[in-house]
Amino acid sequence: AHFSSSSIMAKSKFEYVRNFETDDTCLRNCYIVVRLDGRNFHKFAEQHNFTKPNDNRALSLMTRSAQSVMEELDDIVIAYGQSDEYSFVFKRSTNWFKRRASKLMTHVASQFSSSYVFYWREYFGEQKLLYPPGFDGRVVLYPSNHNLRDYLSWRQADCHINNLYNTVFWTLVQRGGLSTSQAEDRLKGTLAADKNEILFSEFNINYNNESPLHRKGTTLVWEKTDESTTKKIKLPQEEEKEITVTRTRKKIAALTCDIIGDEFWEEHPDILENDS
Amino acid sequence: AHFSSSSIMAKSKFEYVRNFETDDTCLRNCYIVVRLDGRNFHKFAEQHNFTKPNDNRALSLMTRSAQSVMEELDDIVIAYGQSDEYSFVFKRSTNWFKRRASKLMTHVASQFSSSYVFYWREYFGEQKLLYPPGFDGRVVLYPSNHNLRDYLSWRQADCHINNLYNTVFWTLVQRGGLSTSQAEDRLKGTLAADKNEILFSEFNINYNNESPLHRKGTTLVWEKTDESTTKKIKLPQEEEKEITVTRTRKKIAALTCDIIGDEFWEEHPDILENDS
Amino acid sequence: AHFSSSSIMAKSKFEYVRNFETDDTCLRNCYIVVRLDGRNFHKFAEQHNFTKPNDNRALSLMTRSAQSVMEELDDIVIAYGQSDEYSFVFKRSTNWFKRRASKLMTHVASQFSSSYVFYWREYFGEQKLLYPPGFDGRVVLYPSNHNLRDYLSWRQADCHINNLYNTVFWTLVQRGGLSTSQAEDRLKGTLAADKNEILFSEFNINYNNESPLHRKGTTLVWEKTDESTTKKIKLPQEEEKEITVTRTRKKIAALTCDIIGDEFWEEHPDILENDS
Amino acid sequence: AHFSSSSIMAKSKFEYVRNFETDDTCLRNCYIVVRLDGRNFHKFAEQHNFTKPNDNRALSLMTRSAQSVMEELDDIVIAYGQSDEYSFVFKRSTNWFKRRASKLMTHVASQFSSSYVFYWREYFGEQKLLYPPGFDGRVVLYPSNHNLRDYLSWRQADCHINNLYNTVFWTLVQRGGLSTSQAEDRLKGTLAADKNEILFSEFNINYNNESPLHRKGTTLVWEKTDESTTKKIKLPQEEEKEITVTRTRKKIAALTCDIIGDEFWEEHPDILENDS
Repeated sequence: AHFSSSSIMAKSKFEYVRNFETDDTCLRNCYIVVRLDGRNFHKFAEQHNFTKPNDNRALSLMTRSAQSVMEELDDIVIAYGQSDEYSFVFKRSTNWFKRRASKLMTHVASQFSSSYVFYWREYFGEQKLLYPPGFDGRVVLYPSNHNLRDYLSWRQADCHINNLYNTVFWTLVQRGGLSTSQAEDRLKGTLAADKNEILFSEFNINYNNESPLHRKGTTLVWEKTDESTTKKIKLPQEEEKEITVTRTRKKIAALTCDIIGDEFWEEHPDILENDS
Repeated sequence: AHFSSSSIMAKSKFEYVRNFETDDTCLRNCYIVVRLDGRNFHKFAEQHNFTKPNDNRALSLMTRSAQSVMEELDDIVIAYGQSDEYSFVFKRSTNWFKRRASKLMTHVASQFSSSYVFYWREYFGEQKLLYPPGFDGRVVLYPSNHNLRDYLSWRQADCHINNLYNTVFWTLVQRGGLSTSQAEDRLKGTLAADKNEILFSEFNINYNNESPLHRKGTTLVWEKTDESTTKKIKLPQEEEKEITVTRTRKKIAALTCDIIGDEFWEEHPDILENDS
Repeated sequence: AHFSSSSIMAKSKFEYVRNFETDDTCLRNCYIVVRLDGRNFHKFAEQHNFTKPNDNRALSLMTRSAQSVMEELDDIVIAYGQSDEYSFVFKRSTNWFKRRASKLMTHVASQFSSSYVFYWREYFGEQKLLYPPGFDGRVVLYPSNHNLRDYLSWRQADCHINNLYNTVFWTLVQRGGLSTSQAEDRLKGTLAADKNEILFSEFNINYNNESPLHRKGTTLVWEKTDESTTKKIKLPQEEEKEITVTRTRKKIAALTCDIIGDEFWEEHPDILENDS
Repeated sequence: AHFSSSSIMAKSKFEYVRNFETDDTCLRNCYIVVRLDGRNFHKFAEQHNFTKPNDNRALSLMTRSAQSVMEELDDIVIAYGQSDEYSFVFKRSTNWFKRRASKLMTHVASQFSSSYVFYWREYFGEQKLLYPPGFDGRVVLYPSNHNLRDYLSWRQADCHINNLYNTVFWTLVQRGGLSTSQAEDRLKGTLAADKNEILFSEFNINYNNESPLHRKGTTLVWEKTDESTTKKIKLPQEEEKEITVTRTRKKIAALTCDIIGDEFWEEHPDILENDS
């Protein structure tokens, strides 16, 4: 009892340590981007027998986890993912968690990671998850629509370059019978055109017909849909009537389209806020 | 093919967006503390029928997840948890991830969250996890041993105050038959001594005999243990011999002791580095 | 000699302290504003007998010092001053001092302060400067043209509000014979319209005819002027000729116009860079 | 009048721009060091005919300006200067300007710069200051006494190394008749011992007897002195008496001693606060 009675006093004596926290509010009127990257995912992919060059189960699980992030956290207007990374864009004027960088990035990292384990079975079925995976995150600010689009273009161009390389590399190995180091040598110094040529002339593959999921990555956006339901109602002293109720709902759509050109942005005018 | 050949050029055109990343290196020679807090855990606890005032399965799962963090991430020298929060202390001189705050806190948040889901079944058995939970994190720096100890003392004092309150509150409700609002009224304005008195005189409970896990929270530290194994070896032209091999291994120990006083720190002299 | 020979070694032993410096690079594609404020200028004004409500010598000296800042430091595109404060706007894409906030603000504060003392005599003649004055500074980033214009509008609106108040206050005191506390009472709760009315009906002053320097503050911009000089040249075997050489030079212009409305910005299209 | 009446409204419409200011509070329980460096002082020295290798007038003016900083700004416990730089150390527990880095560094830069011009004539007499000089500044935090001492040792070791070089270099030029490029060649690759040897054997100079001001730089500390004054007092119905009144005053002392070793710190135990 003696100790206890002084415990509130004791706590208040220590409470000064709170003042060591620093403010990391994000500059206003900027897009806040949180990007996650898988930790040691090369090894993770091997240990879980991911197919090469792309494992659709793994990509779908990434996207399922990203959807969970968008549904749980406020104000994410677009997300883009490829390979073992995902970027989340908070709207320019968001005031979620008072724009504190640490809160935003840890929340995203946490929700994504718990979702990855939670939904694993939906995509990998009986194949066991061997250990809890990790993702790291960072926050980057973009002051203009132009900068934000260039950021997303950068990630999609990265997806393209990596996927083209990986597609040729694994085709040479899996269908061409080369060892991995032979395939590496073969591709050293080749340009994109050379790689397309190898695919086409040696394996009759037109890269542009490959899966857009692999070539373009996944873009998550909010889409409004009208949902109509019919209800039967009966008012007193009247006949029963059927009426149709239409509600607008927001749903996440997963797209595999180009987001570098203008078309996507013209079709989704609500993602960007004006530069003002 | 045309598009592809220009893709590397395209990517390099966008790559300037990298320069918008800012450096968030933590000041050197300071302890780096990452604290996680459960998001909406009040609701989470209700939806998963946590027992009141403490659910040992939930506390154990928190500690299991914290252990996973300590094992996976480098340079954490001590961790302290209570309720739905856990603090991780990186050693003063750590250079893990170049001391970048965002990397440190997102890695901790991610590893903890994926572990929480991964190990759920070990503690909750057949009771289903209904949705992936979230945790937010922050980084705080402490420049001296004194400051760090005060930080940990602050959290343990907080544990004590909350647990005493919750213990009396739920005893009044569960055994005293009060409604929750009656119990709240009853406790309004009471000091620690009053609460101890209620427990003792009305319910014959000596608070100091309550579970140390609940009163003190959990402290995780690295402990060295000597592991001896015997091997039979047989050298050529000699008889078979048995020899004993002793290896020193680091293992995480979960303690429920006081960490405010000096005793704990004298017994664990390796946690703190000198103030120099 | 013994000590000396080890001095480079000694220095390198200490050099690790450099790593404690932190990076404070300003986010790219934002306007960087440095605002200076006089330290204890109320007292400074009294000790140097500044006239009330405005001292033209003091205002001119502020502007002379601001000009010195613009001439010495790179990439300042506009400056705005009133009373004892001055704001300097670095161009959006500046890379001066690698956009390091500390360098930018200390350079501005330093150059302004040394200039203030250096040019004092030009404006105050035989009246002695009693002690070296101080100015503090801060850096603020603005991500869009709109935000930057609102910042400058905010400062000019502040100038207007203060100057209207001060004009009425000191007119009541100097010409109306009120004590300072009587004047304060008289103005308590009055709106701008009331203050205009007092000036007009009691003192026959139309506020809008007051000096624009006092009502609008001073805006410094770069202006291009063509300077023509005539030179006599004589080529071999020819007569001497007079030729006119025209050079475009950048010069600072001090304006006292409105910068809230669009007109100023339409007339000076080079100050802002596109929001891209 | 119409415009005026809406001006407060107008101002409040713009006032949101305040929220773009970011918090740059310095971590608590750390020493805050502000270091100033002359801008283009090589050129400044030439234009003002500074004597080589050291100009005592210039060094004294630097120190006079630093004294002005210490007298005007609160909580600076020690300052160290050499060549065209000066470091100011705020006490570990200072709360001056709420520890805001921008305020601390701009105030120091401003006060130093205005003082430099203000006191110029005291040291350079009739030699005119040609233009207002500039200094840039930075803030660095040190979490322990050990780190702070290493910082100051680093600066004093730097002073030593530079001064030894400059002393030999200018002796070779001024007394040895070498050109500056010959002197440079001569010194390429020499160690401290070699430089001492050149001075001693060729010019009969014992470097250790050179001016401590040049070898050690200047350290400013607060010193307490007892000032005694005698006053005659006469109480009613008594004889006149003489009494002695002793007052303790703080005064700045300028030292040219070693601050790398322990002796200085043992003699000035009040500068450092305990590592706690």
